[in-house]
Amino acid sequence: MFLFGVDYYPEHWPEERWALDVRLMVEAGFNVVRLGEFAWTKIEPCQGRFDFSWLDRAIQLFQERGMRVILGTPTASPPAWLMQPNPELFRVREDGHRLTYGNRREYCPNHPLYHAHTREIVRAMAEHFAQNPAVIGWQIDNEFGDRCYCPVCRAGFQKWLQRRYSTLDELNQRWGTIFWSHLYSDWDEIPVPLSTGNSPNPSLALDFYRFCSNSYVEYQKIQIDLIRQICPGTIITHNFMGFKYEFVNYFDLAADLDVVSYDCYPRMQWTMQAEVDPGWQALAYDTMRGLKGKNYWMMEQQAGQGGWEQLSVMPRPGELRLWAYQAIAHGADAIVFFRWRTSRFGTEQYWFGLLDHHGTPGRRYAEIKRMGKEIASAGMSLLSTTLKAETAFLLSYDVRFAFQIQPNNPQFSYPAHFYHLYQAFHRRNIPVDVIGPDADFSSYKLIVAPSLYLLSEHLVDRLNQFVRDGGVLVLTQRSGVKDETNLVIDEPLPGRLGEACGAEVVETDSLAPGMTNSIVFEPTHWREVPPFEVGVICDILKPISACAIASYTQEYYAAQPAITLNHYGKGQAIYIGTIGTAALYDEVTSWLQQRLRLESILDQSSNIEICRRQGESGEFLFLLNHTNQPQPVNLEFDYTKTLDDQRLPAGLHSLPPKEVWVLIRE
Amino acid sequence: MFLFGVDYYPEHWPEERWALDVRLMVEAGFNVVRLGEFAWTKIEPCQGRFDFSWLDRAIQLFQERGMRVILGTPTASPPAWLMQPNPELFRVREDGHRLTYGNRREYCPNHPLYHAHTREIVRAMAEHFAQNPAVIGWQIDNEFGDRCYCPVCRAGFQKWLQRRYSTLDELNQRWGTIFWSHLYSDWDEIPVPLSTGNSPNPSLALDFYRFCSNSYVEYQKIQIDLIRQICPGTIITHNFMGFKYEFVNYFDLAADLDVVSYDCYPRMQWTMQAEVDPGWQALAYDTMRGLKGKNYWMMEQQAGQGGWEQLSVMPRPGELRLWAYQAIAHGADAIVFFRWRTSRFGTEQYWFGLLDHHGTPGRRYAEIKRMGKEIASAGMSLLSTTLKAETAFLLSYDVRFAFQIQPNNPQFSYPAHFYHLYQAFHRRNIPVDVIGPDADFSSYKLIVAPSLYLLSEHLVDRLNQFVRDGGVLVLTQRSGVKDETNLVIDEPLPGRLGEACGAEVVETDSLAPGMTNSIVFEPTHWREVPPFEVGVICDILKPISACAIASYTQEYYAAQPAITLNHYGKGQAIYIGTIGTAALYDEVTSWLQQRLRLESILDQSSNIEICRRQGESGEFLFLLNHTNQPQPVNLEFDYTKTLDDQRLPAGLHSLPPKEVWVLIRE
Amino acid sequence: MFLFGVDYYPEHWPEERWALDVRLMVEAGFNVVRLGEFAWTKIEPCQGRFDFSWLDRAIQLFQERGMRVILGTPTASPPAWLMQPNPELFRVREDGHRLTYGNRREYCPNHPLYHAHTREIVRAMAEHFAQNPAVIGWQIDNEFGDRCYCPVCRAGFQKWLQRRYSTLDELNQRWGTIFWSHLYSDWDEIPVPLSTGNSPNPSLALDFYRFCSNSYVEYQKIQIDLIRQICPGTIITHNFMGFKYEFVNYFDLAADLDVVSYDCYPRMQWTMQAEVDPGWQALAYDTMRGLKGKNYWMMEQQAGQGGWEQLSVMPRPGELRLWAYQAIAHGADAIVFFRWRTSRFGTEQYWFGLLDHHGTPGRRYAEIKRMGKEIASAGMSLLSTTLKAETAFLLSYDVRFAFQIQPNNPQFSYPAHFYHLYQAFHRRNIPVDVIGPDADFSSYKLIVAPSLYLLSEHLVDRLNQFVRDGGVLVLTQRSGVKDETNLVIDEPLPGRLGEACGAEVVETDSLAPGMTNSIVFEPTHWREVPPFEVGVICDILKPISACAIASYTQEYYAAQPAITLNHYGKGQAIYIGTIGTAALYDEVTSWLQQRLRLESILDQSSNIEICRRQGESGEFLFLLNHTNQPQPVNLEFDYTKTLDDQRLPAGLHSLPPKEVWVLIRE
Repeated sequence: MFLFGVDYYPEHWPEERWALDVRLMVEAGFNVVRLGEFAWTKIEPCQGRFDFSWLDRAIQLFQERGMRVILGTPTASPPAWLMQPNPELFRVREDGHRLTYGNRREYCPNHPLYHAHTREIVRAMAEHFAQNPAVIGWQIDNEFGDRCYCPVCRAGFQKWLQRRYSTLDELNQRWGTIFWSHLYSDWDEIPVPLSTGNSPNPSLALDFYRFCSNSYVEYQKIQIDLIRQICPGTIITHNFMGFKYEFVNYFDLAADLDVVSYDCYPRMQWTMQAEVDPGWQALAYDTMRGLKGKNYWMMEQQAGQGGWEQLSVMPRPGELRLWAYQAIAHGADAIVFFRWRTSRFGTEQYWFGLLDHHGTPGRRYAEIKRMGKEIASAGMSLLSTTLKAETAFLLSYDVRFAFQIQPNNPQFSYPAHFYHLYQAFHRRNIPVDVIGPDADFSSYKLIVAPSLYLLSEHLVDRLNQFVRDGGVLVLTQRSGVKDETNLVIDEPLPGRLGEACGAEVVETDSLAPGMTNSIVFEPTHWREVPPFEVGVICDILKPISACAIASYTQEYYAAQPAITLNHYGKGQAIYIGTIGTAALYDEVTSWLQQRLRLESILDQSSNIEICRRQGESGEFLFLLNHTNQPQPVNLEFDYTKTLDDQRLPAGLHSLPPKEVWVLIRE
Repeated sequence: MFLFGVDYYPEHWPEERWALDVRLMVEAGFNVVRLGEFAWTKIEPCQGRFDFSWLDRAIQLFQERGMRVILGTPTASPPAWLMQPNPELFRVREDGHRLTYGNRREYCPNHPLYHAHTREIVRAMAEHFAQNPAVIGWQIDNEFGDRCYCPVCRAGFQKWLQRRYSTLDELNQRWGTIFWSHLYSDWDEIPVPLSTGNSPNPSLALDFYRFCSNSYVEYQKIQIDLIRQICPGTIITHNFMGFKYEFVNYFDLAADLDVVSYDCYPRMQWTMQAEVDPGWQALAYDTMRGLKGKNYWMMEQQAGQGGWEQLSVMPRPGELRLWAYQAIAHGADAIVFFRWRTSRFGTEQYWFGLLDHHGTPGRRYAEIKRMGKEIASAGMSLLSTTLKAETAFLLSYDVRFAFQIQPNNPQFSYPAHFYHLYQAFHRRNIPVDVIGPDADFSSYKLIVAPSLYLLSEHLVDRLNQFVRDGGVLVLTQRSGVKDETNLVIDEPLPGRLGEACGAEVVETDSLAPGMTNSIVFEPTHWREVPPFEVGVICDILKPISACAIASYTQEYYAAQPAITLNHYGKGQAIYIGTIGTAALYDEVTSWLQQRLRLESILDQSSNIEICRRQGESGEFLFLLNHTNQPQPVNLEFDYTKTLDDQRLPAGLHSLPPKEVWVLIRE
Repeated sequence: MFLFGVDYYPEHWPEERWALDVRLMVEAGFNVVRLGEFAWTKIEPCQGRFDFSWLDRAIQLFQERGMRVILGTPTASPPAWLMQPNPELFRVREDGHRLTYGNRREYCPNHPLYHAHTREIVRAMAEHFAQNPAVIGWQIDNEFGDRCYCPVCRAGFQKWLQRRYSTLDELNQRWGTIFWSHLYSDWDEIPVPLSTGNSPNPSLALDFYRFCSNSYVEYQKIQIDLIRQICPGTIITHNFMGFKYEFVNYFDLAADLDVVSYDCYPRMQWTMQAEVDPGWQALAYDTMRGLKGKNYWMMEQQAGQGGWEQLSVMPRPGELRLWAYQAIAHGADAIVFFRWRTSRFGTEQYWFGLLDHHGTPGRRYAEIKRMGKEIASAGMSLLSTTLKAETAFLLSYDVRFAFQIQPNNPQFSYPAHFYHLYQAFHRRNIPVDVIGPDADFSSYKLIVAPSLYLLSEHLVDRLNQFVRDGGVLVLTQRSGVKDETNLVIDEPLPGRLGEACGAEVVETDSLAPGMTNSIVFEPTHWREVPPFEVGVICDILKPISACAIASYTQEYYAAQPAITLNHYGKGQAIYIGTIGTAALYDEVTSWLQQRLRLESILDQSSNIEICRRQGESGEFLFLLNHTNQPQPVNLEFDYTKTLDDQRLPAGLHSLPPKEVWVLIRE
C-alpha cells in the first residue's frame, strides 16, 4: 500500500472532535496516521505510571475506518517531572551554556539517566502496542541533532577516543598535539571544543563532531533494539532533515533503520523568499534516497505555513500537491503530511496543518483531497519502482564536519558548492544518485566528488580504481587536502588522488570578497565558449600526465591551468581547481553529458523538472512545473496521464503552472 | 503654578558653587528643582546611618530663593555596600546572566531584601522631609523597566500563576501545555522563558511578561504607600519613557500615581539622525497624557547632547525650547530640564545639561532663559486647559507583549505600525487621544485599534457595542487572533470582532523581504486615487455583510478584498487587512476625516504642527515649526501671541524655523 | 651581524628531517633561528621533570652550521597537566565567561600559581642554556595581550588602586563615584568592568585597562629578571603586534626589554583584501621603532598565507621580500621569518611557512633565498644606521584606552584618525617618528598629536613649552577633554592646551551617519584650494589670540572657525577641529611642509615609498615599489644599488613592480 496520511495529535483536541477528524481524513484519502510523537507526559504523567487509554481509543477510531498507525516514540520532548529535578540532563551548548526547560530536544543524548527513562517509556509503549495490528511502524524520537558539550559527553568523548586510539601517544601523534604544547598526559585532560576554548585543534574538533554524531546513532540504537525485540517485523524509521542538516552523519544514522523518512518544508519562517528553488528540494530527496540506496518515506510533508514566531510565506495554490509529487518523483513511497490541524497553543502555533486553527476544511484540504483520489488509483503501481542514475555525487559528512571547522575561505560553503554542481545536472534532468564514501561505485559512469577535502586511504584507492576501471571522476578545488585525522597530508596536493588526476596543485590562492579571476577553455574544447568568471578559491595546477582544459586569465597565475583532464587506466579524471558561477557548471555538465552520453529524461529544453521511476510495474515519467507560467512539453510518443487517466498524444502540450503529470507510455 | 525647573545634583559639585547655581536658575526663570535621585549612598553611607544635612542645606538655598523641590527616591541606584555582599539581589537577564555592579537599575524588583532596604531609605527620607514646605512632590525611583529572570522572580512567577489559575489543571489547559509534553505536575516545574530554553510556549511567555510588568507596579506601590502615609497630600509621580518603551504596562504603572511624568530626549546617541521626527514625539506626549487621561509633567526635558559613550547630534539652536513647547502643546503642565550642569564624571559624562562641564552659561542657557520669561507670563493660564479629541487610538500592552513573543513577520513592528497610522492624523493636525483597553469609549467618534491581535471577551463586547452605538472602528491586519492566554481562537478570524466587521479572514499571507502587493480602491471610493503598495502581512478578506473598499491586485488573491467596510448598528467598522505606506494611511485618513467630519486644528496645509489646549482660561493654539525653513501661516482671525504678547492680525504670516507661537483669539 | 633567519619548531617534525631543514636554511642565507616557543610540554612533560635533550640536539645541528639561536620562553601555551586540574588559572573574558583549554594565551597573567610555574620553567631553561654559546637571546612568551576579569585580577586591581589612591575618599573623589551612588566604602566593593555591569564609570574602566596592561608588564618582568640574573649579557626581547594592537601600553612593555621585536603579517585571514596598504605597515614599523626610540627586530616576518580557519590571500610574488625590506627601511636590524615549514596539524594549519606542508622548497623559498644573498653582502653595513625625522606623531595608550571606553562618535576611531594623518606624511616620504608622551620633544620641528583626548598636567606643560621654544604643534578635534582620571575638565576645551592654541571649543557637534559639513580655507591661505568635506566630529572654535585658517560652510555654525593657527612664544599651534578626508590632510601636510621646510626623502612625485637609513657606515636610500606597475624614479646623482652592486647613474629610471632598490650615493 502506498502510504498516504497525516500527522495527528489527538491529545491536543477534545475527544468529541476525534470522530469528525477521522472522517475528514478518510474522505481526504488518507490511509495512515502518525501518532504519539511528543506525548510523553500524556502517556507517563508521572514516573512509572502509564496511561495508554486515550491513545488506544484514538487508534481504535482509526482502525475502524481502516487506517494504519505509525507511532512516534516521544523522547524528543521529555516531561518537566523528569528534567526539572535533574538539571544535568540538559544539553550544553558550544558556548558552555546549559539549556533550560520549555521547548524540545533539550536533553543530552549520552546521559545514563536519560537512557534509563528512554528505555522505560519505549519498552512500555512497545509492549503495549506490540499486538495491535493497526500499528505498522515506529518513528524513533524526532529530528535528531545538535551537539552537546556537557561533562557527561566530555567523559564519553574521552572514552570514545580511548577506544579509537588505544594510547595517548597514538592520539598525541595523530592529532599533532605537540602544536601549542597540547600533549595530553591523561585522557581526563582532553577538552571538548567549547567556544570558550577559541579555535581548537582541528583534529580534536573533527573527532568531537564524529563523536557527537555517533551519540545520536547510539541513542537511536537503544530504542531500535528494544522495539525490534518486542515488536519483531515492525518497520522502524526516523524523520531526517534533508540535505542541509549537517550535525549528524546521516549515512550512519540511516544504517540501523528499515527506512529513512524525511521532513520537508520548502516554506518556513527561516527561509522567507518569494519563490521556492525546486533544485534544493531535489537534492534533499536524492540525498534521502541515497542514505540507504533505496526509496524513502515523507514523514512530514508541508501542509501549510511553517512558522513559530513568524508566519512563513503562504504555500501558493497547488504547491503542497506539487511538492508531494516531487517527493514521489524522487523516490518517496509514502507521503505523510504535517500536521492535521494547526495547534492553537504552544511554540508551533504558526506551523500550520491542513486545517486552520478553526478546524474547518478549506483550500489546502481540498488540494490534498484531490491528491488522495489520484494516489488511491496510481499509488500502488509506483511502489515497485525507483530511480536509476548513471551519475553519482559523492557526499561525505567527514568533509562537512571538517569544513565547519575550517571553511578555508569565508565565502566558501561546501553544501552550496555541492548544490551548485548538482544543480547543473538537475537543470538538465540528468538523474543523479547521492552516495556516501562506502557506496558501490561500479554502476556509475560518472562520479562527481565536490571538494573531497578529507578522505581515507581506502577511499583514495577505491576512487583511483574506479577511474582505472573506466569511470570518469570529477574533483574540484581543495580535494585530497587532509587525512582521516584532519592533518594536512605531507605530499603535494591532491595527494594520491593525483594518480588519477595526473596533476599537482602548486599553490592555492584564496580570494578576498570582491576579487575575481576568469578562465578560458583551450581551443580544443568541444565548442567555442566565452571566458567564465571564477573566484573564492583558485588552485593553480601543474599537469603531470594530464592536459589543461582551461586556464586562468588574470593575476600572477594567468595562463596557468585551472582545469585538467587526465586519462588513467580505462577512465578519466577531471580536476576543476576553482569555483565558478552556474554558467561554468552548465558548460562543464553539457560537455560531460555529450562526452559520456549521459541521458536527460525526456530531454526537454523547457523549464520543467522531469524524473523517471521504473521497475516491475513499468516506467513512470514525472513532469513537474514549479513555475508560475505554463510550460511547453514536446512528446515524441503517446502517453497516458496516470493521475487522471487521460491520454496525451505525441506532440506539443502545455503543462499548467504548479501542475504535475505522471505519464506512462502507451 | 506652572512648574518650570531643572534636575540638579548638588552632591556632584563643591558646596561653594551651589549659591551661584541657584542664582543662575532663578535668573533662568526656574521655580522648581528635582533633587535626591540617585543619592542613596550620600544619604545612607552605610546601612542605617542617614545623613540629610547636605540635602537640607541645598533645599534651604532653594527655599530662600522661592523655589520648590521635588524629591526623587534613590532606589534606582543601590549602594555598593548593599549589592556587593548580596549577589542574589542582582537582576538576571533573559540569557541567564546575572548583572554585576557598576551602573544602575541592576536590582531584582521582587527580592525581599531589596524591598526591606527600599522601605528603610524611603521611610527615612519621607519622615525627614514630611514637614518641609519646600518639598511639593516625590518621584519614585527612575525609569522602571527590564525583566528579571532570577530564581526569586521564578518563584514569584509560580505563586502569581497559582493565584491566577488556582489549579495546575487549569493552567495546563489554558496554556495548552500538552503541546510538546509540557504538562506541569508541580508549580515548581514551571520555568521562566530564558533564552537557553529556546522559543517558549507563547502563553507562558505572555504571562511572564505580565508578571514582570506587575513586579514593578507592586514595587512602586511599596514606595507610594509609605510616602502617602507619611506625607499625606504630597504629589507622587514617576518618570516614564514615552511610547517606545514596552516592557512595563504603563497604564498599570500610572494607576497608582497622582501624575505621570515623562523623560524626553529627541536626540540621543542611540537615535543618531540629522533630523528629529516631531510625530514620534507627539505620539509619546499623547500616550503620556493618555495613561491617566489627563495632563502630565515633563520630568526630564532634554537640555543638551544625550550620550554615554557617544556624543549625540547637538540640539540645534531653538530646538530645546521648541521641544519644551511641543510637550506643553500636548498637555504638559510642568517642564523640568535634565540636567542643570553636565557631569564631569560617571557613565553620563556626555549626557549634557543646560550648562557644559565648565559651568559657564552659554547658548542653551540663554535659550531656556528666554523661555523662562515667557512661561512666567503665560504659564499660569495654561494650567486649567487640556486637549480634546474626537479620535482615539487604542493601545494595548498585552498586544505589545504578544508581538514581542511572536512578531508574526520579521518586518512587522506593532509600535511602528501604530505610529504610521497615528502619523497620518498628526500630519493633518487632527487631535488624537491614546487610550487603553479599559478607557471609556463613549466620547469618541472614531477609534483606531491597530493590529488588535490579542484581546479579552470583555473588550470584544465593548468594541462591538461602541460600533452599535454609532462609533466608527478601524481595525487592521492580525486583529482578534488570540484570546487572553495567547491561544489562537478556534473561530475564523477576526473572531467575534467579525460581528462589527462583517467579514472573515480567509487566509493570511506573510511576505518575504522584497515581496510586495498593491491594492486598488473600488470605483465607488470618494475620489479617484492610484493603486497603493502594500506588503508584510496580507489578510485575504471574505465579506459577509461588509462591502469591499479595496482589493489586492497581485498574487493568487488578486481581486480579493483587502479593506472592507461594514455598517453595524448605528456605526461602522473598517478592516484594513494589510500594511501600507504613508500614502495609503494618508488616503484612508483623509477619507475618514471627510466621512466623519473630523476637525483639523486651524486646517493649515503647511508643514507645521498645531495643537489646541482649552479650558476655563480660554483656548490656546500652539503653532510649531519643526523644520529648518520658515512656514506660511494663514489666519482667518486676529490673534495675540501670548509668549511675547504681540498682535497677529488675520492674514498670511511666516513662522520662522524652530519657532513656536502660542495664540489666543482676540 | 645582521640577523637573518626563521622560526623553527623541530619538535613538529621527525628528527631525521632536521639535518635537511638546517641545510636548506643555510643555503637560504639564514644565520639565526628562533626555537622553543610553545614547547612547554615537550620540555616539561610533567611537573618538575625537564627534558632538554631534543632541544640540545637541534641546537647542536644549528651550531655546527654556524647558526645562532634565540629561545622563546614557552609560557604562552601552558600544558594541559597544569591548566586542566586548576581551572582558576584560566582567563575570564569581559562577558564573565572563563576560557577553557585548547588554544593558547588562556592563562590569567596575575595568578600566583601561574607565576610559580612560570618561574620554574623559565629558570630551568635559563640555567640549562646559560652556557650555550649558540644561544644569543631570549624572546619572552608570545604576543602578550587580552584583558582578564577573574577574581584574582579583581583582587589585584583593588590592591593596585589602593597603591594608586591610598584612600577610598581619594578614589571616590577622583573617579566621581558620587555619580549614581557608587561611593565605595570598602576596597572589596570595587568591581571590574564586566559587560554584565553595563556601561561602567569611565574612570574605573580606564584604571582597569591600565591595570590589565600593567599586569602583562609585570608578568614579563618576572621572566626578564630571572633570565638577566642567570644569563647576564643575553639579549631579551618580546614580539609585539604593531600599531593596531591596543590592549597593552606598548611603551611600558618595551621599557624593560633590550630590543623590541615585531610580528608582521600584511596578509591574514582577518584582513582579506586584494591589495595591502603599505602605509599601515609603515606606521607599524615607525611605532615599533618609537617604543624604545631605536631600531627593532622582526621576529615573525610573513612567509606565506596567514590563516587559521581560512586561507588568506596568497602573498604575491615579490611581496615577502618587499615587506622584509620595508621593515629594514624603517629600522629593522633583524629579519626572522615565520615559520619554516607549514604545520600539518593544530590550529595554525593554514598559517603557512616558507615551505609548504610537503616540505619541498618552492616559489617562496626561492624568493627569500635571493634576499639571503643580498643581506649577506649588504646587511652588515646597515646595522649602524637608523632613521632621522623632523616630525613626531604623539601616540598615547591612555587615549586609546579612553576612546575604547567612550568612542565619542560611532564613526570615530582613534587609530584610524591617527593613521589618516600619518598617511599624508607617508605619501610624501616625510620621515616620521612615533613617540610616547614621555619622549624628548626637543629634536622635532613638528609634533602632530591627533585627538589628544586625555592627558596629564605634566604633558600639557611640556607641549606648551615645546611651542614656546619654537616648535609647531598640531592638535585635532577632541583634544584636552579629560584629565588623567578620565574626568572631563572643568574649563572650556581644550583646557590648558588653549594656552598654546589661543582658541576655545565653544561646542562640539557630533554627526550622524550620512551627515557631512565642509570647510573653506581663508583667502590668506598659501594657495587656492576647493572646499573640503568634513564630518563625524565638528569642534566649533572661538579664536582668542589665534586666527582662523578655515571655517565651516554649513549648519548653524557656518562661517565659524574649524581650524585655527596661533603664534605662541617662538612657535605655533594649529588646532584642526574636525575630521577630513585624505584630501584635507594632504593639503594641511603640504602647507606644513612648505611652511616648516620639512624634507621629503628624494622628493619623488611617483607612487613609491622612500626611506633613508643613515649612520657611521653611510647613507642608504630605500626605494620600494608596492604597486603592480613599474614606477619612474628620477635621480639627481649617481648611485650604486647595494643589493646587486650595480650602478644607477643620474637620470630617469623605472623601478619594477614589487621591487626594491637600496641606493648609496657614489
